[in-house]
Amino acid sequence: MSSLIILGIDPGLAHTGWGVIEQVGARRHALAYGCVATSSREETACRLKRIHDEISEVIKRYHPTELGIEAVYFGSNAKSALATGEARGAALVAAAYQQIEVGEYSPTQIKQTIVGTGTATKEQIQYMVKAMLGLDHVPTPDHAADALAAAICRAQLRGSFCDCLSER
Amino acid sequence: MSSLIILGIDPGLAHTGWGVIEQVGARRHALAYGCVATSSREETACRLKRIHDEISEVIKRYHPTELGIEAVYFGSNAKSALATGEARGAALVAAAYQQIEVGEYSPTQIKQTIVGTGTATKEQIQYMVKAMLGLDHVPTPDHAADALAAAICRAQLRGSFCDCLSER
Repeated sequence: MSSLIILGIDPGLAHTGWGVIEQVGARRHALAYGCVATSSREETACRLKRIHDEISEVIKRYHPTELGIEAVYFGSNAKSALATGEARGAALVAAAYQQIEVGEYSPTQIKQTIVGTGTATKEQIQYMVKAMLGLDHVPTPDHAADALAAAICRAQLRGSFCDCLSER
Repeated sequence: MSSLIILGIDPGLAHTGWGVIEQVGARRHALAYGCVATSSREETACRLKRIHDEISEVIKRYHPTELGIEAVYFGSNAKSALATGEARGAALVAAAYQQIEVGEYSPTQIKQTIVGTGTATKEQIQYMVKAMLGLDHVPTPDHAADALAAAICRAQLRGSFCDCLSER
């Protein structure tokens, strides 16, 4: 039975969570997850390079063919949206280089897909991620759990495809 | 007399302007300038990859050692700040890979440096960029002129250095 490897990313300049899941038939399990932490004492370009490098390394190690990434909640202010955008830019360039299909999902879509309601709490999401991936513990930090949730969301809702990447 | 090559970037998801200037002693001239245009019909990851690739190519061609980039005006809304952030992320990763020193300047700082007043108009900036670089024409599009202005601002105000890049 063929398997599908999916990367999930929860982007942020200070913390970018990532998680890799494998789907074989109807079963899904986690292969790895983690978080890139950067400090505001570092230059922005350096922080972005580390996010880009770490995500590139994860992609080279696990060879995901698809990516689920959280779309940004526009209720946030412009300053935090800019920082999240920078982290997304660094991570998405890494994905584009490896010809990975990208799906963007709103926080509500992810909650709906994982828990069944768009108003689910963070704890409900974490509990369901643990259960759906057969993990012994709730994955930590939060950013990694959110990244795994984005990967599961991608697994359930996959379909979109980036045409320019298929030409390479 | 040794020369200094400086790249300027005016980042945006739809249009990222760039400009390269050379400083020899007190004289500065433009080596090249241009603009990366992407369409909202393209996937975000593809747009960001093109911005990253184009800026990487410019860096490989002209070997700048310093970069001036416009800091974002937080009066903008969260949606446009996110898109600008993504473009900045893609461009700054390219700069970080080439160990380029980055200086970020507010629109007011750039206006102050180029025209002498923080309330200068776009036309005044363009006129001064043309005069300061000895160009025959006002550089177009606007995004390229703004990028050249950021490069001139970097030339005048240089000093900051990204420590993590010097270690590579």
